[in-house]
Amino acid sequence: MKYCSHCACELDFRVPDGDNLPRFMCNHCGTIHYENPRLIVGCLPFWEDQVLLCRRAIEPRHGFWTIPAGFMENGELVEEGAMRETREEANAEVEIESVHTVYSIPHINQVYMFFLARLKNLDFSPGVESLETRLFSENEIPWEEIAFSSVKFCLESFYRNRSTASDPAQLGHFVRTGKKS
Amino acid sequence: MKYCSHCACELDFRVPDGDNLPRFMCNHCGTIHYENPRLIVGCLPFWEDQVLLCRRAIEPRHGFWTIPAGFMENGELVEEGAMRETREEANAEVEIESVHTVYSIPHINQVYMFFLARLKNLDFSPGVESLETRLFSENEIPWEEIAFSSVKFCLESFYRNRSTASDPAQLGHFVRTGKKS
Repeated sequence: MKYCSHCACELDFRVPDGDNLPRFMCNHCGTIHYENPRLIVGCLPFWEDQVLLCRRAIEPRHGFWTIPAGFMENGELVEEGAMRETREEANAEVEIESVHTVYSIPHINQVYMFFLARLKNLDFSPGVESLETRLFSENEIPWEEIAFSSVKFCLESFYRNRSTASDPAQLGHFVRTGKKS
Repeated sequence: MKYCSHCACELDFRVPDGDNLPRFMCNHCGTIHYENPRLIVGCLPFWEDQVLLCRRAIEPRHGFWTIPAGFMENGELVEEGAMRETREEANAEVEIESVHTVYSIPHINQVYMFFLARLKNLDFSPGVESLETRLFSENEIPWEEIAFSSVKFCLESFYRNRSTASDPAQLGHFVRTGKKS
């Protein structure tokens, strides 16, 4: 961030009065440009003891498996965003049961929120961002081909104790291991 | 948003190729400036059957009661942000127990996440953004002087069934009633 998006003047990066962190500030119009983490919302769609995964048709992690999820948009509820992504990536309709996973990745300023979501029917298919969509039982999950640490955490939490809607949300975060998230 | 924060050129507002929503786009350097909801994180600090509230020393809702919460910062975990706000606004140390409340306010692009958090001790006091901090039993809660709908939802959820760490997160959202959130 170099220029003010309101008046096009150059920005400073310094601590505003009464704050304790440096922000991008415009000395011309006075606007402070805060930067905050983004929220990625999605569903863990299940059918009996199976879960619905999507094989990614886009980067990052092209060809790897994920659950339907994406950046939350302005103007929607968290659960609406999660259902929208499930429609877009898997053409699937779900009923949201509970907040299943909250997972932070601080070094890239991202927070993931995944919902436990019951598939309404078996009418699903790949959206434009997916190569393939299918149901997996626990012993079929392609653990080495899961796209993201947040999704792995979500699936492990689900199968550890077969999550239900009456369970508390699982709270996790990325731990550096030398591998990418 | 009028000018590109990377190159200072004027922005268009249109749908990028492969997208389905209009975005602020720079025709000069090609940057797409996405806008997404912001996450407000906080704690519902409790001690036995009492909860810790803070009376706001700042706008909006100066003089009204809230729980310690604020915008999540880049580079932190959700639970770290909630604990930081609890220190800043109430000089209180807590142990995070669970995700208690997830509450969307879509017309202002905000998502609230509040944690059920056990006070480690009774050593708390107002931070610079608070006029007063004190413990309330259920029958003492100043329901008509609660600052925000998200906080009212959180407190009502807590007392409806005396929340514990093994409960699922409460999922809610702002409902227009003619009153402000």
